[in-house]
Amino acid sequence: MSNSVIKIVDLFYNPKSVAVIGASKVSMKGGNRIVNNLHSNGYKGQIYPVNPNYNEEDELCGFKFKRSVLDIEGEVDLAIFYVNNRIVTNILKDCVKKGIKAAIIQSAGFEEVGVEGLKLRDEIAAITENFSKLHIIGPNCMGISRFDGDYDDKKGGFFTGQFTLTNYKRGNAAIITQSGFLNGGIAPLIFRQYPNLGFRYIVSIGNKMDLGENEFLEYILKDDTVNVIAIYLESFKDPKKFISLCRKAKQLPKKTIILVKGGKTSQGMKAASSHTGALVEDERLIDAIIKQAGVIQANNFFEMFQFLRTFSMMYKSGKKFPRKGNIALVVGSGGMGTIMGDIAMKYGLKFPEFSENSYNILKSVFPNWMPPNRFALVDSWPTMEKAMMDAAKKAKSTAKKSTKKNAINEKERNPFRMMGSFGNVMDVIQRAVLEEPNIEGLFISMPGGPRGRESTMDFMTPMLKRIAKYPKPVFFYSMMESEGSLEMLRLCGKYNIPLFTRTEDIAKNFAILVQETKNKERFSKTS
Amino acid sequence: MSNSVIKIVDLFYNPKSVAVIGASKVSMKGGNRIVNNLHSNGYKGQIYPVNPNYNEEDELCGFKFKRSVLDIEGEVDLAIFYVNNRIVTNILKDCVKKGIKAAIIQSAGFEEVGVEGLKLRDEIAAITENFSKLHIIGPNCMGISRFDGDYDDKKGGFFTGQFTLTNYKRGNAAIITQSGFLNGGIAPLIFRQYPNLGFRYIVSIGNKMDLGENEFLEYILKDDTVNVIAIYLESFKDPKKFISLCRKAKQLPKKTIILVKGGKTSQGMKAASSHTGALVEDERLIDAIIKQAGVIQANNFFEMFQFLRTFSMMYKSGKKFPRKGNIALVVGSGGMGTIMGDIAMKYGLKFPEFSENSYNILKSVFPNWMPPNRFALVDSWPTMEKAMMDAAKKAKSTAKKSTKKNAINEKERNPFRMMGSFGNVMDVIQRAVLEEPNIEGLFISMPGGPRGRESTMDFMTPMLKRIAKYPKPVFFYSMMESEGSLEMLRLCGKYNIPLFTRTEDIAKNFAILVQETKNKERFSKTS
Repeated sequence: MSNSVIKIVDLFYNPKSVAVIGASKVSMKGGNRIVNNLHSNGYKGQIYPVNPNYNEEDELCGFKFKRSVLDIEGEVDLAIFYVNNRIVTNILKDCVKKGIKAAIIQSAGFEEVGVEGLKLRDEIAAITENFSKLHIIGPNCMGISRFDGDYDDKKGGFFTGQFTLTNYKRGNAAIITQSGFLNGGIAPLIFRQYPNLGFRYIVSIGNKMDLGENEFLEYILKDDTVNVIAIYLESFKDPKKFISLCRKAKQLPKKTIILVKGGKTSQGMKAASSHTGALVEDERLIDAIIKQAGVIQANNFFEMFQFLRTFSMMYKSGKKFPRKGNIALVVGSGGMGTIMGDIAMKYGLKFPEFSENSYNILKSVFPNWMPPNRFALVDSWPTMEKAMMDAAKKAKSTAKKSTKKNAINEKERNPFRMMGSFGNVMDVIQRAVLEEPNIEGLFISMPGGPRGRESTMDFMTPMLKRIAKYPKPVFFYSMMESEGSLEMLRLCGKYNIPLFTRTEDIAKNFAILVQETKNKERFSKTS
Repeated sequence: MSNSVIKIVDLFYNPKSVAVIGASKVSMKGGNRIVNNLHSNGYKGQIYPVNPNYNEEDELCGFKFKRSVLDIEGEVDLAIFYVNNRIVTNILKDCVKKGIKAAIIQSAGFEEVGVEGLKLRDEIAAITENFSKLHIIGPNCMGISRFDGDYDDKKGGFFTGQFTLTNYKRGNAAIITQSGFLNGGIAPLIFRQYPNLGFRYIVSIGNKMDLGENEFLEYILKDDTVNVIAIYLESFKDPKKFISLCRKAKQLPKKTIILVKGGKTSQGMKAASSHTGALVEDERLIDAIIKQAGVIQANNFFEMFQFLRTFSMMYKSGKKFPRKGNIALVVGSGGMGTIMGDIAMKYGLKFPEFSENSYNILKSVFPNWMPPNRFALVDSWPTMEKAMMDAAKKAKSTAKKSTKKNAINEKERNPFRMMGSFGNVMDVIQRAVLEEPNIEGLFISMPGGPRGRESTMDFMTPMLKRIAKYPKPVFFYSMMESEGSLEMLRLCGKYNIPLFTRTEDIAKNFAILVQETKNKERFSKTS
């Protein structure tokens, strides 16, 4: 059976020819963009634009229009529908007649609109003889994507969505979703926000009249290049199968599944039912499924993308996942440290005590009037003041020896110099923490947040290179969303170091690593 | 007593002359920057830089150095300390001798470092005869700020912190804080992040050896230009007084207090104690204080600034605060709508049913194959598709009449055109919702997030102008932090419309308005 699932999904992912029903020369229309998305990203097979309003001389991306799938001479493996819901059934009959085995129905207006939509569903089931003659993704979906290469160098992939994808990157993440948005409008924003987060698959399953989350999960789990799979569901199609697949994933090396379940409350369910026609599910049942499946739960799309990024980076850079939740924090503000203390505790994390050795190393960079804490919350503010004082003293003694007082004064004002001496202090602190055996990871809060200045970048790059070498996860925190923090986010990304702009986020994202370690232990024991 | 508190605080806020102990010509040092911060922002009084390492010919910002406060000929109202903790007490004796009535001690290394620090505290109490001769802010603080004008036009204020403030804006917000960071490194970032959020006061109270949150709260409550006060505390100095002041605020028009309490957990307390020497407080006691005070609680600094911004904007634009939590959502993704449904419910918000009238207006912009919901969750995606189809049809019929087919094709590709027709649709939807009596506010989710393109801005500005006129709060949501969303955030800010990048945030920020309405009702009844 498992083999047959792979074969079925391959009908969609490896077609030799594709008919785009509703293709159009009008660039605003989805049918136009689907053809473009396939063609411009290097789909090698035959594309047939199908639309009865065009003639056989008309072309799109160099492919001649056909008025009906029945007019196509060669074989067609996959049909993509982007037409009004009312004409779907008639064209589907033609597809079956033509011997087409797979269709992605992107049109909306089925189960989610009530009685009329349910009638359409029944007609489709009858036409396809319960999907035995022709398998369906959708309806009410936004297509499937597979990323074969990066956009820049080895551009390529198989993209059936109506949003033309550019600037993507192939990587170890995948998404299976009941919200087309995740393969649509938001995808380009994610690629830009996290340019180092690469994807292998994004599948919009819509109302999942035939194929659903389980078939794609099974398919994706076979791909060794995928480490983390995020799934957005408004209902479970076959909860038992879902649980068993998720548990199976726990036995595989380097696989994590993240789940966002929409429609847990009565208001959410009402919304889900008008969105994908999802049936009401009991909240306790949902929670039981999540617990039994041992997946990481995210509460919204933002969190989902953040978790994807965290796992993607940790797997990619071969980090050792934490088990005890022992974390160290280096922060430039005591108030922020206090709040982080509360938040860390809320997420089950602990700041352990330093060993005598680490404590003594730390003490060397602190001023006498303010020694460091004995526990792993390092308020670096006094070290910064000390570094500044030391730099000023040094400058003064140099100035005394020199006669060119003004020249020295200018040099002394140079922020690089100050940054440099503070950089050394940070080096000492970070080393002490990362080499302390009892600490599993490090949070670094940028004092005041990065300003996006060149000097900050010059200061950051060697630091990132240095700490990226340790097998312990290091997370950065920079308060506020700003142009500077976005620049910093991308710079950190290059070293697989995630940057967060919220205190809750940084704790939560470390806690899910601990949770995943425990999940893996739990399921390896019970299996 | 109240009058005397105002007089005491005025010693700090309206001094005719200020001595800066530890002033320095070295720009890296805090004592240098304090003089600069006072001078460059237009402090009109006399400034005396004090440092025994300089001679009387030495100058800073045009003010001659003094080797001791006792060398100053004129009267000194306020002394600001930026020197090593060990020399504070000796200089403080001189201050008392000189008849100085107020000192801000920014030096750290007191209660928070244990036994040695406690000894220093006792000495200070003895020297000042329990603060009767000289009042103290701090120690371990980062100064106080009062904003008299905007940075651009009527630049001016009274700033004693060691971070030179620029680009600030006077406004209806204030902060009282035990984290100096909020008057330090983070302030410039906040000014840049929320350029339309203006402040009147920021007060860093540090260890609050003498003056604390209550004195400043009382002082600030007297200022009619302040509507919202955020307070960050690691301990309560006099909880009873605090509760009574907060309750008093509830009787005043347009006043809201936001509280962040750091050190609620054992880890947070440990951190707080090493930060400001705060004593351990029972979590249940803290919760009881918050409840009795009727304040809005924030969990971290980010949330605090976001809440500040929300209340500041709502008061500034005279919005009607919601009471029932009846909200409408316009969203371009059904999945996002489903998640918003769950999150809204979590925060006690409801999407009410539309009246027949509003429903019919909405229906007119939806396609037949996908009518709108009966409840106030408007998935605008189908209206966008309809608008695009209509625009395409129109373009086609124009093209038929014309012979210049290619020219029309180009015109039809113009995104402005498409945006324009979708803009009309959004207008219809927003009007219908904002004029529905049962709806108290509107969330608008930008489909796919703003891209920061000129066309988006052109599209946004008339929309913002239109909806800003309604007395109901309108909140924008745009997923992802991006350069585009930051631009949009600032644009929305001009119209007092807050933009959020997280689904949880938008719901939470509306829920605090409902909570504040209820708080005001509760305390007007019980008083």
